[in-house]
Order: sequence, then structure tokens, then C-alpha cells
Amino acid sequence: VTSELTDDGVLAANAAFYQALEAGDMAAMDALWVCGDDAVCTHPGRTPLCGWTDVRRSWAAIFSAGGNPQVIVTDERVTRRGGVAWVSATENMLAGGNTAVATAINVFEHDGRGWHMIVHHAAPIMR
Amino acid sequence: VTSELTDDGVLAANAAFYQALEAGDMAAMDALWVCGDDAVCTHPGRTPLCGWTDVRRSWAAIFSAGGNPQVIVTDERVTRRGGVAWVSATENMLAGGNTAVATAINVFEHDGRGWHMIVHHAAPIMR
Repeated sequence: VTSELTDDGVLAANAAFYQALEAGDMAAMDALWVCGDDAVCTHPGRTPLCGWTDVRRSWAAIFSAGGNPQVIVTDERVTRRGGVAWVSATENMLAGGNTAVATAINVFEHDGRGWHMIVHHAAPIMR
Repeated sequence: VTSELTDDGVLAANAAFYQALEAGDMAAMDALWVCGDDAVCTHPGRTPLCGWTDVRRSWAAIFSAGGNPQVIVTDERVTRRGGVAWVSATENMLAGGNTAVATAINVFEHDGRGWHMIVHHAAPIMR
């Protein structure tokens, strides 16, 4: 499904991202992301990481520390322009007994075979 | 310059956004944004506003309260895919004697005549 050039295909790729995050599945992250200089990842409250080398290292560190949260994703909203699309979503996270809420923009690019994440930008919501 | 289908055109549109923000210039915001349902704006620490009606109302409220900050923009990084592009940037803000730092992803769309902002997603950086 993540291969379809449709809004549903984008949503499937977005779901695959959160499944990989919850599972701490580095191989799934490798398969999902655009593994080049254009990859940008902003963890909540942090400065952006630019380029797949730095982005990958951050996920590896999170996963090796067992810090992968449970995430309930709500308010998903897709905007698609051909082979580029972005999803706005609320991330309701539970990790180590703590809860946190963030709002994310996830940008995906279709490479002719499937959707790949090129930007993950999470912003903490202050309450 | 904001009409050029180039990275420089995107950067000019990004600069126009921060000029409008600093100046509290609602007419410039009207001219810059995609004024439709796809507009998404996330102010730092807040939940996303979806659709131009809600986005515009938020800017009008900020400007009428005199809350428009000074913004020094650093770390600009453009990624462009034809007529869609996004800029990652650090926003160093000064408002009412307070300073704040956020990291933003700004998405722009070219309508054949110029670049228009379709997503502004600002994330506070925690220190």
C-alpha cells in the first residue's frame, strides 16, 4: 500500500513510520527514509538533524536506549502534490511512564516505487 | 524574485514571510499564503491551525496585539522538488524583551506565478 501514488499510500507510509518507531525497528527506518543529504529530522524540542547519517544515528541511539515510545497518532491530514506529500499529525506518546504530546509534519517523496520519508519535524505542544 | 522556480526564489519567499511577520503586515501575509483549505500553521508550542480562515485569524490576533517579534533567521536549508519546496530554518525571536528559539519547516508551492506558503510549522527548541 505504501507504493500507491495516492493519499492512502501516503497515510500507509506515515503509519509505517510510527510502527517502526514503536517497534524500535531500524531496518524498517532504513527502508522508509530517503537515505540522503535531504533527510531532515527534528525530534521534539531539539534542533534539526540534516542528512541521513545524522538522522540514522539519532534513531539508533533512541532505539538502543530502549527509548522508543508508544505512539497513538491522531488528527492525520494529508496534502499531496503528485509525488510529494506531507502529513500533519498529533503524536500522543507514552514512554517510561511519561506522556507527551507533539504535533508533526512528515514529508514524503515517491521514488517511482513507493513513498519515502524525507522530513520528520516534531514540535512539542505546551499545555 | 519570489516568482523564480529556483532555490533562490524559495528563499526569497521565505524571507518575505519573516519580513511580513516582523512588520505585522497582514496584506503581505495575504499575498504570500496559499489561502485555502490546505494551509497549515503551527505556532511554537501550539496545535496546528488548518485552513486559511483559522490561520489568517491567528496572524491577525498576533499583529493586533502587537505581538509580532523580531526574527533573526539562521540555518536556512532549501529542498525543492519542482513546484513544491520546503525550508528548514532556525528562528531566533525577540519579543517584549523575551527571547525564544524555534526551528521551522516552511513548505511553499509555486502557482505558476510565484511561491506561496502552504505550511508553517514552528517547533520550540528546549534548552
